[in-house]
This record gives sequence, C-alpha cells and structure tokens, in this order.
Amino acid sequence: MSYSISRLVPLVAGTALGLSAMVTDVHAQADGFLSAQESDPRVMGWMEGFPPPPELRITNPDSVFFSFPRMRWSVCHLREFLPTEQVSRGLGAPTPLEYALDDGIDAVTFRPLRGDVEEMTWEESLWANYTDGILILHRGRIVYERYFGCLEEAGQHAAMSMTKSFTGTLAEMLVAEGTLDDTALVQDIIPELEVSAFGSATVRQVMDMTTAFEFSEDYGDPNAAIWVYNAAASPFPRAADYTGPNGYFEFLQTVGPDPDGLEHGVEFHYRTPNSDVLGWIISRVSGMEVTELLSERIWSRMGAEQDAYMTVDGVGTPFAGGGLSAGLRDLGRFGQIVLNGGEWQGEQLIPAAAIDSIRGGGSLEAFAAAGYADLAGGSYRGQWWIFNNAHGAFAARGVHGQTIYIDPTAEMVIVRFASYPIAFNSRIDPTSLPAYQAVAEYLMAQ
Amino acid sequence: MSYSISRLVPLVAGTALGLSAMVTDVHAQADGFLSAQESDPRVMGWMEGFPPPPELRITNPDSVFFSFPRMRWSVCHLREFLPTEQVSRGLGAPTPLEYALDDGIDAVTFRPLRGDVEEMTWEESLWANYTDGILILHRGRIVYERYFGCLEEAGQHAAMSMTKSFTGTLAEMLVAEGTLDDTALVQDIIPELEVSAFGSATVRQVMDMTTAFEFSEDYGDPNAAIWVYNAAASPFPRAADYTGPNGYFEFLQTVGPDPDGLEHGVEFHYRTPNSDVLGWIISRVSGMEVTELLSERIWSRMGAEQDAYMTVDGVGTPFAGGGLSAGLRDLGRFGQIVLNGGEWQGEQLIPAAAIDSIRGGGSLEAFAAAGYADLAGGSYRGQWWIFNNAHGAFAARGVHGQTIYIDPTAEMVIVRFASYPIAFNSRIDPTSLPAYQAVAEYLMAQ
Repeated sequence: MSYSISRLVPLVAGTALGLSAMVTDVHAQADGFLSAQESDPRVMGWMEGFPPPPELRITNPDSVFFSFPRMRWSVCHLREFLPTEQVSRGLGAPTPLEYALDDGIDAVTFRPLRGDVEEMTWEESLWANYTDGILILHRGRIVYERYFGCLEEAGQHAAMSMTKSFTGTLAEMLVAEGTLDDTALVQDIIPELEVSAFGSATVRQVMDMTTAFEFSEDYGDPNAAIWVYNAAASPFPRAADYTGPNGYFEFLQTVGPDPDGLEHGVEFHYRTPNSDVLGWIISRVSGMEVTELLSERIWSRMGAEQDAYMTVDGVGTPFAGGGLSAGLRDLGRFGQIVLNGGEWQGEQLIPAAAIDSIRGGGSLEAFAAAGYADLAGGSYRGQWWIFNNAHGAFAARGVHGQTIYIDPTAEMVIVRFASYPIAFNSRIDPTSLPAYQAVAEYLMAQ
Repeated sequence: MSYSISRLVPLVAGTALGLSAMVTDVHAQADGFLSAQESDPRVMGWMEGFPPPPELRITNPDSVFFSFPRMRWSVCHLREFLPTEQVSRGLGAPTPLEYALDDGIDAVTFRPLRGDVEEMTWEESLWANYTDGILILHRGRIVYERYFGCLEEAGQHAAMSMTKSFTGTLAEMLVAEGTLDDTALVQDIIPELEVSAFGSATVRQVMDMTTAFEFSEDYGDPNAAIWVYNAAASPFPRAADYTGPNGYFEFLQTVGPDPDGLEHGVEFHYRTPNSDVLGWIISRVSGMEVTELLSERIWSRMGAEQDAYMTVDGVGTPFAGGGLSAGLRDLGRFGQIVLNGGEWQGEQLIPAAAIDSIRGGGSLEAFAAAGYADLAGGSYRGQWWIFNNAHGAFAARGVHGQTIYIDPTAEMVIVRFASYPIAFNSRIDPTSLPAYQAVAEYLMAQ
C-alpha cells in the first residue's frame, strides 16, 4: 500500500499552518470569496443527510476540512475530525451571566482602517468579518450576543491561537504564585530541551515570544520546519517509513538556533512552538496536563456552562498553541475575570499580579521589530496582545478572526468567533479594531 | 511511503471486534491475567509524565490501546484516540440524585455460577470483575457508589454495546409515537439497503436482532466480514489503494444473505451491524443524527451532569452499536427513567408504550437458538436483554462487563462500568448476575 504525503497535508494543515501569522497582507483579497451569507454552512448544507451526499461531505482527509468555505462548518466540529481531551467544567450548576441587552449597538458606526469604505455599522462589520459568534459584556453584563453559521449557544468553536492566552495566563499564575521562575532557563526546567534552541531561552522569553530559533515557514520547501512541525503534531497513523518527530515535545527538541545569529530577547516573532514549550513547562512544573490545569484552575471555578476541549498529538499532548474549542459565553466569563483583575464572584481565581504582568505589556522595541502595521506601538506579554491604545486594551487573538478583546477603560469585553476566508488577522483587523473602539465609546456614553 | 494493514488493525480492533459477543467460553481463563488491583491504571502509571516515557504510553496505533491491561486506561479516554461527537446535556443546572447510602451492601454474599467458589461477597465481586465504576439506585436513591481504576465521578467511561440499548430505546420511542412503523421493511425506509440482506428485514427484526445475514467473524480470514466492517468503521486516513466501504452505511450495503439460507425472524444472533442499521433508520426518520436525537430526547432532559459522546466513522456517522461514552451517574439517571416506565420528575420522557415493549421481551424461541448458557430462557427486545427471571430483570450490556441492570421487583438499578481482561460477558456473568440478585433481595428486605 502506498500513502502519499500530499494526502496527509490537508489533515494537519489546520493544526499549525493555519495558526501561524504573517505580517504583511500579501495574500489574495477576500474579494472573490463567497460572502458570509452565501458561505453560511446551513446555506451550503454541509454534512446534511444520512449519509451526507459526497458533495456535501467534510471529511478528514478526503477533503480539505480546514479550507474555505468548508472551514466555516469545521470550526464548530473539530472534535469530529481529531482526537481531543476534555477541559471539564466540573459537575456543578453553571453560573448564569446577567443580561442588559442594548439594541443601539447594531447602528454604531466606525471608519475601517485603510481601504475606501468611509463608514460601516457594527452590524455590517459582523458580516464583513464572517462572524460565527459575538458577545459583548459591559460592566459584567451581556449587552450584545449573536450567533451565526455553525455556532449555537450550546456549541463550541475553535479558539485557534486564543489558546495561547490561556496557556500564557496559566504560566503567569504559576509565576505570580512563585512556583515558576520566569528568569530561569528553559533547560533547567526541561532538560530535554538543552539540545534545542529553546534550552538557552528564559521562561519569560518563551512567554513573550522573544526567543530566536530556526523556523522556516517556506511552504514550498518540504523540509521546512513548518512541515516537520505539522507532521509531528499529527495524531494519525504514520507511514511505516516516517522517521520524523512524534508529537510537539519531540519536535521542540529538533529546533536549532536562528540561522542569522539572532539572540533571544531581542525581537518578538509570533511563532506557535513557543506556546508548546510553555505548555511543556507548566505541565512539568504543575504535574498536570494543560487541559487538567485549565480545568482545575479556571474552567471548573468560573461557573462555565460547557466543557471545553483541546486537540492532542499522537502521544496525548494537548496543543497548547492552538487546540482549544469552547463556548462563546464561557470565553466571555474568562475575559470578564481577566478584566476584573482575576476576581470572580468573590474569589481571586487568578492572582492580581498575573493580570498586572499581562497588562503591563512586553518589550515595545522587540515588538516593533515584527512590523505589524495595525498593531504599531503594541507589545506581546504572557501570550496576550497589548495594543497600548488610549483605552489600555489587550486581547487574545487567533487566525480567521478569533478574539477576546478587553477594554479596561470602557469596562468592556468582546468575544468574537469567526471563520474569515483568509487566516491572517491583518485582513480582519481593519473592520474589527476600530469597530471595537467605537462600541467602547458608545457604551461609555450610555 | 508504505503502509501495512497490520499496523492499521490495532487501530480499529477496539471499534467493532471488541464489541462482538461470543456464546461459549472458549477463551483463556482470566486466571493468569494481572489482578484488578495489579492492573489498576494508576498502579501501572499509564500516560504519566510530560511526555510519558515510551513504556508508559498508550497511543494509537503504536500500541494496542484496547488490549489488557492498557485497555483499563483507554476505556476512560476513548476521545483521546478517536474523533467523536458530543451528546449535549444542554446548558441548564444538573438535577442532583438523592443519596441513601447503605453500608451493608459490601457484605452481601452470593454463590457464583459454575466454578468452585462457594461464596463471594459483593465487595469481592467488584474486584473479581475489574470494576471501574458501580452505582446502585434503590427506589430512586443512590444506595451504593464506588469508583476504581481510571474512572472518577467527573469522568466518562466507554459504554460499549450498552450504546445499542440507547439506540434501541430511541427506536422504540419513535415506534410508540407512530413515526416509525416496526412492521415496515428496512428497504422502504432506507432504499439504499435494497441491495443488502437487511433490505428485506422488518424494522422489528433489526431492533430485536432476528435478522439473517452473512457475517463471518473468522478473525483468521482477512476477507471475513468482521474485518471489512472494522476497516469501514475506521475514521483514520486510508491507504491510497483502499477500495472497501467507507463508513457504517456503506458497509451495510455490502452485506449478503445468510449463506445457509436462514430466513429473517427465526433466530436471534447478536450482531452489531443490526444496531448500525437501526441508527440509520432513526436518523432517516427523525432527521437527526443519533447523537442529536439522544441529546434532544434524553440527555438534555434528564438533568445530566455531564455531556456524553460517541465515536464516529470517517464520514461523521456516530457508532450506534457501541460508540457511547458517558458518566456513571448519568447512566443511573437513564436506568431510573426506564425503571420508572419513562417518567422523570413529572415529565414522560419516554412513552410508557416504548418501555412496555422492551419489558415485554422478544421471541423466546429465536433467543434459545443462540444458546446463551447463563441467559437461558431470556430474550432480546429493542436492543435490550430480557432475563425473564423471577424479578423481571432486564439490562443493557456491553463487553468487558458494562451493564445497566434493571430489577423492577426490587425497584433497583445497577450501573457497572468495568474493564475485565476478556471481552465476553460469559466470563463475567457468573460473578455478576447472582450478585445483582443477592443485592436485590437484600434491598427488598431493608
């Protein structure tokens, strides 16, 4: 029997490829893609029928389950393609969130960044961004909540790289509690990484992604690190002659130094393997998988309505850089806890010092080196994006438009799940970041 | 790249192979296996460490994840090996079960069937049966509850073929409600099965497994139907030259008539593909996947504490014959509803006629043909096992010791999850069925 690598690529492409970020907008315009309304999975009819007819099937690996427009269905159904681990909410009753719905939000207008559009309404932005779920909390109460496409209130959506912010928050908690020293070298915590470029980085450099290492994202080169990473991450049966690394942890041990001699701590580069290193660190220090620690410290204590879950590699390691799927309101609970400085219903779930560390931001110089046009002046800290805007906003972000956007000045949390046709947030930010600011100002004026 | 079928076999072995049943006790004695205490997954240390060292790993396909003693860990972690679909509990608060614990149960004694053991206590039977979780409800209250091995109260365990009884109950509900005619031919509901032996069977014959069809379980013959079934069920990437059926539904279309000319309706034969046909029927009739229907009709209405889940094939079809994993107390809720004649907290969740149909039993003559020594005089109805004993007991049963045992006379429900080294319940019944009867009599005397 033969097994071509080209058939394997679609399998794992969504795992890591789709979670990388690019700085510049070099890819195709969203123009030309089906619109949000046209590509609604319910309109497309994906997976309807018993069995679905071949043209409506989304399977793994026989179709590219993570390419647009199929991806608009898949983002709500990752567990149906991949092995996963539960992030348990525990067995208690959920804690309902309070409502104070505001029907004025849809008409709030803003001017998109760049481009020719003079004015767009909030509601229009939801369609422009292929939104699957949107929640706005103001002063702890839900003022806006809508579901589209594949998502329902009792469903889970891929969080993509927002996962990193959960991993990073757990790390910041361990640092604040004194069980993890962020000045320690990685190799002193994970001796297996002494052979890797990561070994000589500090924990903080990993947390803030200022590590330097060789990581080619040349998708045309079959030996590029991005492909080795993808193959290592696959939880599926391997070809008999596969000799590459098995799982995230083995991959990390193969990572060499930056080929241009860049040192750790100088430049921010948004690269997912940092989050996998961080997942390894917090598991080694806490004695728990990321899924277990996330459940024990956060999910089972915040009155979550639903379990969350994470995808795993072939040796059962949760994907700390992008594997989380969860419900919209549960991400709202988490965002509100972070906005509250870690306090939730009378309990300090997250040490205030951990939140302070995130909100304090990372190195501006290191971040500037990455050249993000729409995030200029920002930084990256503890796996969160810090905008350094007038409102002190910061966010968890994931490709295809995922965000938990926290605006402390407006006492506002926005959670958005989306399935924008193109992965890069540089395409989505122009109709998102100014919209968030406009809604913040609207709410502050109420 | 080459890909040998021998490496694929362990992958799918647990899916269908482990869910077949055999009548006679032809396999090795449990003697010689590690004891329940010795094989406790926590003692073995499976999957401990970050990453687990190779000798403690349970992966798919690099080790036989469903062979003893690894299986004792895997039964609580199926979703970490396989794609799955959620059976949602909804978003409301769970309904707690009442407790009236009885510390006299451990000392209840009984005489095992066959063998040399004169007397065994209830507690001893738990170890003898490699119990992972055991719950006894008496008059609707929990009188006994223990967890062992891989299972915790906030965990899920493979239900194995107990899944069939959920599928069968949903079918009985649709029959009772008049939306499914159990006298109709399968091919009149599923035209795709006209080419299959199943097409000419009635829905009732499928529900009661009195269909006749060719289904070789000669594991030594690589072309035997059991292997075709296993391969069809696999959700994993296929070798490029694979030409067999893809998924349960395609497999069912390949099933030929009984080679000896046996007609439908004459003999009971316990064969899992019947349950897959039934899953197809209830999905076609209801317009919902088995997971969705189970959630909508049962799981979201019984105050469940946890979501359940089902494994799926490569085109997203839930495994109606054995794919369910769920929490111990949630199966207790379901058993209690069935014992209550379908009523739950003032609502008739399951039509009384559906429960009556199950409790009324199936053909004694057809069942006798199957020659089950320990179940002599029993029958099979709506995918439930009817003992026809003095107490009118009936049960959902799955290999390796899974059961929901309902004793209407004693107003008792027992749920047991187990990971007995050998699949066949003929090995486990001798220390289970008389134990259940003894506890029933004990509770009736309280």
